[in-house]
Amino acid sequence: MAAKDTQQPKELPTVLLHRLPSMNLPPNPSFRDHLRSLFHLLDPHDSSEPYDSFLSRHAHSIRAILPVGPAPISSEFLQRLPVLELVVATSAGLDHIDLPACRSRGIVVTNASFAFAEDVADCAVGLLFDVLRRISAADRFVRGRLWPVKKEYPLGFKLGGKRVGIVGMGSIGCEVAKRLSAFGCTIAYTSRKKKQSVPFPFYTNVGDLAANTGVLILCCSLTEETYHIVNRDVMIALGKEGVIINVGRGSLVDEKELVQCLVQGEIGGAGLDVYENEPNVPKELLGLDNVVLSPHCAVMTPESFEALFELIVGNLKAFFSNEPLKSVVSNE
Amino acid sequence: MAAKDTQQPKELPTVLLHRLPSMNLPPNPSFRDHLRSLFHLLDPHDSSEPYDSFLSRHAHSIRAILPVGPAPISSEFLQRLPVLELVVATSAGLDHIDLPACRSRGIVVTNASFAFAEDVADCAVGLLFDVLRRISAADRFVRGRLWPVKKEYPLGFKLGGKRVGIVGMGSIGCEVAKRLSAFGCTIAYTSRKKKQSVPFPFYTNVGDLAANTGVLILCCSLTEETYHIVNRDVMIALGKEGVIINVGRGSLVDEKELVQCLVQGEIGGAGLDVYENEPNVPKELLGLDNVVLSPHCAVMTPESFEALFELIVGNLKAFFSNEPLKSVVSNE
Repeated sequence: MAAKDTQQPKELPTVLLHRLPSMNLPPNPSFRDHLRSLFHLLDPHDSSEPYDSFLSRHAHSIRAILPVGPAPISSEFLQRLPVLELVVATSAGLDHIDLPACRSRGIVVTNASFAFAEDVADCAVGLLFDVLRRISAADRFVRGRLWPVKKEYPLGFKLGGKRVGIVGMGSIGCEVAKRLSAFGCTIAYTSRKKKQSVPFPFYTNVGDLAANTGVLILCCSLTEETYHIVNRDVMIALGKEGVIINVGRGSLVDEKELVQCLVQGEIGGAGLDVYENEPNVPKELLGLDNVVLSPHCAVMTPESFEALFELIVGNLKAFFSNEPLKSVVSNE
Repeated sequence: MAAKDTQQPKELPTVLLHRLPSMNLPPNPSFRDHLRSLFHLLDPHDSSEPYDSFLSRHAHSIRAILPVGPAPISSEFLQRLPVLELVVATSAGLDHIDLPACRSRGIVVTNASFAFAEDVADCAVGLLFDVLRRISAADRFVRGRLWPVKKEYPLGFKLGGKRVGIVGMGSIGCEVAKRLSAFGCTIAYTSRKKKQSVPFPFYTNVGDLAANTGVLILCCSLTEETYHIVNRDVMIALGKEGVIINVGRGSLVDEKELVQCLVQGEIGGAGLDVYENEPNVPKELLGLDNVVLSPHCAVMTPESFEALFELIVGNLKAFFSNEPLKSVVSNE
């Protein structure tokens, strides 16, 4: 295995596979083979050479990197790659990448929200429905053989007619809006700026959005500006029947305050796919029937991965043939 | 309480409240008061007079009855009400009412699927999503603190692109189709007959529908013709990745065979709100991760009940003023 990188035909364009030792590309060996047939994939963790020495030796041939999942790309790391031009991220969120450092170097970043948008939107709608109608709790009720004993299961809430506020109207937010419209929900949103192509009411901040809706769905990026964008004030504005759905990143919500608000009934419920300290979930949530907890699996379908592979290969091929890239992250 | 029915002003039209002693109208006292302000409500179970004597004494004044939930209306019962003209059912399914006997007497039956359609459709879509993406199982995984131990949660399946067969294209089926179209599913259906207003491919029987789709959603009435309409052959035609969602009645599916097919992996999964012997759920299902089990709660929202009350009052008022009824059941 050690000499694999030197066995690749030299004419293939070089791409650095940047990963944590414990993580690899999504579990699809045929994709890796396909990638290796198109690119000279450098994988420091697949070499017996020490990491630093491996990276230094190849640094001047690395114009593109393919980070796997949340492998961090810091400004220090970028300094070690002097000719880097492209980061092809494999996630929708980019909080693991130092975007300002990329911008200052003119490094282009593409993300994968395009590939994941439908599955993440499905997950947001599924979690919302599950919280409102208490399906996971109903499933526990049946499995715990409580139905013959307690007879009646508590009423849930209807999805149709709910006023839903979407935080972040990117590709995921647009797919969420499309789905919830079919259920008869009323949509409003907040985003960095008002989008001309989006027909729904726009709020300049999440507090006003919360005050005017009964559900917040978080599908924006985690940045310095959006860290704890949903704080206690926002939750109180959302109200006692309010529901928070988070399919973005855990730290979009002040998790400690969320737990408090849920336990004390200051909001009505939550559907969470992401947490501040994954894979650890606040233990106070584990006994609540008004929360639905999924283990950061919103994008976890073979179909999403297929779309991701296409997007990765498409972007790398486009880059090396000087064609337009897909899903470039606006790096303002 | 005994003399209550005689205290009502005589000019109000008489309606028989037909219920099992253990059941009453949905838990909304203001609705009952409203109903009593409009109609002379006869409730045999609210009288100290023996049931048979009460019924005989009032039989000749009862032109309309309001059955609560699944209170059975047999031909023997109908024979005791010689001037009956209208049954205002409070459920979507009418398997508790002898429809041929009503037909032969010219008794009109209205049902409540119009009031319940949206909530039942939501439930069908929610159960389907939950089975495909294993949300309830994911919630168990997180609550059981397995995430930090097992790291990865198994992949689910994408909702978009699924070929979905709807069994029964009434008001509920149409709402299901509308919702799933927004998720990018492909719809086909079977129904007593092809409906000109429905743009989706029609199959004359459920076997062909199963063979050409990957998901069956049951939202038809339970009748002699639809009893066990989903039998083993249909499940085998649906295939190893096939999913069955039942929001109709338990006996639409041969439950014993369903359990076998699920346990042996001959179909992929099931989302069930109804069962053959409620509130008893086959114990083999309680340990399976590819099923989602809810306790016949598809219509259980305050909003549904509100719509039901409006429909009941609307139909009774229309009947007593010779105006057109809503939601008349086609009684062919």
